[in-house]
Amino acid sequence: MKTVGILGGGQLGAMLASAVGDLGGDVSVFEPVREAPACRRVAKVVNAPWTDRDALARFFDACDVVTYETEHIDTTILRTLDAREKLRPSLHVLETTQHRQREKAFLAAEGLPHARFEAVRDPSELAAAAARVGFPCIAKTSRGGYDGKGQFLFATAADVAEAEKALPKGTACVVEEAIDLVLEASCIVARASGAEITFPVFENLHSAHILDLTVVPAGISPPIAAKLVELSVQAARALDVTGLLATEFFLAKPSARSTLVIDDTAIYVNELAPRPHNSGHVTRSICTSSQFDLLARILLGAPLTPLETTTTGVHCMANLLGDSWGSQKQTPLDLAGWADYPDVVEIVLYGKRDAQSKRKMGHFVTRGSDAATAVARARAFRLRVSRSD
Amino acid sequence: MKTVGILGGGQLGAMLASAVGDLGGDVSVFEPVREAPACRRVAKVVNAPWTDRDALARFFDACDVVTYETEHIDTTILRTLDAREKLRPSLHVLETTQHRQREKAFLAAEGLPHARFEAVRDPSELAAAAARVGFPCIAKTSRGGYDGKGQFLFATAADVAEAEKALPKGTACVVEEAIDLVLEASCIVARASGAEITFPVFENLHSAHILDLTVVPAGISPPIAAKLVELSVQAARALDVTGLLATEFFLAKPSARSTLVIDDTAIYVNELAPRPHNSGHVTRSICTSSQFDLLARILLGAPLTPLETTTTGVHCMANLLGDSWGSQKQTPLDLAGWADYPDVVEIVLYGKRDAQSKRKMGHFVTRGSDAATAVARARAFRLRVSRSD
Repeated sequence: MKTVGILGGGQLGAMLASAVGDLGGDVSVFEPVREAPACRRVAKVVNAPWTDRDALARFFDACDVVTYETEHIDTTILRTLDAREKLRPSLHVLETTQHRQREKAFLAAEGLPHARFEAVRDPSELAAAAARVGFPCIAKTSRGGYDGKGQFLFATAADVAEAEKALPKGTACVVEEAIDLVLEASCIVARASGAEITFPVFENLHSAHILDLTVVPAGISPPIAAKLVELSVQAARALDVTGLLATEFFLAKPSARSTLVIDDTAIYVNELAPRPHNSGHVTRSICTSSQFDLLARILLGAPLTPLETTTTGVHCMANLLGDSWGSQKQTPLDLAGWADYPDVVEIVLYGKRDAQSKRKMGHFVTRGSDAATAVARARAFRLRVSRSD
Repeated sequence: MKTVGILGGGQLGAMLASAVGDLGGDVSVFEPVREAPACRRVAKVVNAPWTDRDALARFFDACDVVTYETEHIDTTILRTLDAREKLRPSLHVLETTQHRQREKAFLAAEGLPHARFEAVRDPSELAAAAARVGFPCIAKTSRGGYDGKGQFLFATAADVAEAEKALPKGTACVVEEAIDLVLEASCIVARASGAEITFPVFENLHSAHILDLTVVPAGISPPIAAKLVELSVQAARALDVTGLLATEFFLAKPSARSTLVIDDTAIYVNELAPRPHNSGHVTRSICTSSQFDLLARILLGAPLTPLETTTTGVHCMANLLGDSWGSQKQTPLDLAGWADYPDVVEIVLYGKRDAQSKRKMGHFVTRGSDAATAVARARAFRLRVSRSD
């Protein structure tokens, strides 16, 4: 029996643990927070801080293979462990994708299309970098940014001062050109021993920088979809990923700087996540194997086989944020309204005790004959189960 | 957060725990054997014998609702617990279906079609009962019988002596007429608060009395399928089941004694199981919600919604018994051959350490354009992964 170690005990880790268990693997989770979703579900958990070298070393020693469910892990200690070779995807993949400057440099080196950017080592360099990129532009911290954290929009040079003040000295950033966004999309690749399986392209709708809805099939032309899949596979190969790689794309109105334009749409890689992805939840409902199933196979050494999408129509995954819990942050949602929504095919709740604002607490999936219907039903159902107090 | 207690830590309990966790519920498993599949996967486990009244009482007190994944539970202690009202399906359902005489008496009282039978309180009464039923007939112990255990075929009166010798004094049995079996089928009903959801009818192929393959759709006429669903719902209503009820059917050549004949096929209810059922594994691959998902909803008080079968073609679920492990009873199967079988859509391994002969170790699901193809692929794949040493 192989033991799969998972660094991080969030909902992605919990769902991965389930898939590993289904293939007969044992799971051990390393997670500092005792009440994290995976810790409530998995039999073997190591509760220790990321800075506990001994605990991490013992964890790696006890596992046959180790993966991670978040890229926001300080790798200082991991880098010193003899057993770091057990990490899938590799430490190199983790360190490239967790750091915006390295990630952008990778995109540039591989010729993957991306928004123009400048890297800075300190907030004091932001003004000059922004001037070179041109306004409007966006400053993003190199580390720790997700769900819009650590981002600053500079409409004009006057906006730079605020970021300079907010960011601690020595904070590395990238400054990116602001593009004329039309649509966001993502594509997940599972890769092992040269075999590559791609999931359908997802269309992602964000709200306040947090993924709100994922729609599949995405509302894009077949040539664009084919290109996104091709770029995702190119990125996974270039990083030599063993595991999952989710590539997030911006589709935008073309500008003079756009390097890749198809069907009058400019394509940019936004960022890369070498792990199960929020937009991939819908794979559990619509594919013969989910993103978690394929990662479990890779970690346990079982082969990948071609995927099929098993349902028709359009599916919409909607996140449930803590805001839906209203002021009763520890009271489960009342799901009685589900009875009136037979096209809600799956609800997943992560078992987090405290429903904080903007915190991902769960998700659900609706199905409709077209995108408008699937999205409308998702929004209506979310309103129905959300508390308004 | 509700806590769902599961009595029994086998693979059915492990898969149910997963579904409960997905809906945000906490799970606690009561299981005497430390290495049972669910104990390796679930965070909260009580390892104690079924005879430990205090442990059972504390377990019930700590849970909001309790279910069971096997009906082979001694209810002597359960019956004395104040908290027994938390049991779903009820203690009455458990005690009826775990005891062949009570089960047969229930079928008779409800007018559900069944093979002619006689109940005996002691093996010394077998000969007289067999003579009344007529030969050939089958003696089955009232308790503990599954996978063909505790069954004796009497071709003639001369065969009775062996059963009389083998069975301890005071062993209650039923003696059933042997019918001319054509096909076995099962139908699972999920029921709560008057809502009833039925899964597709499954065709079950046994080998040496153990479920070997489940094929869906079953190879039966629409009128027969409709009648099996109707009888399953009738049984669930008559028992007032809150939870799942799997009804196993015999379809046979009609005899003079057959009470229900459709399309020249006699229909008999064989037995009832008030829990997730081995034949229902395939629901995870083909339905918008699996048997485990619907039971989780019922236990957590979420409503049931109409089911859909999400794939086309024919699916075949095949059990993997310990025999496939050959002499290397603790070495995982080599799944490399999966690469050549893209129509194997799911493999589930239960994580049991010792692969004993006839022990259920896992299952997988194939898909084909027709039943012959799906079954042939299942048999071929099982041979491929089985060790022959």
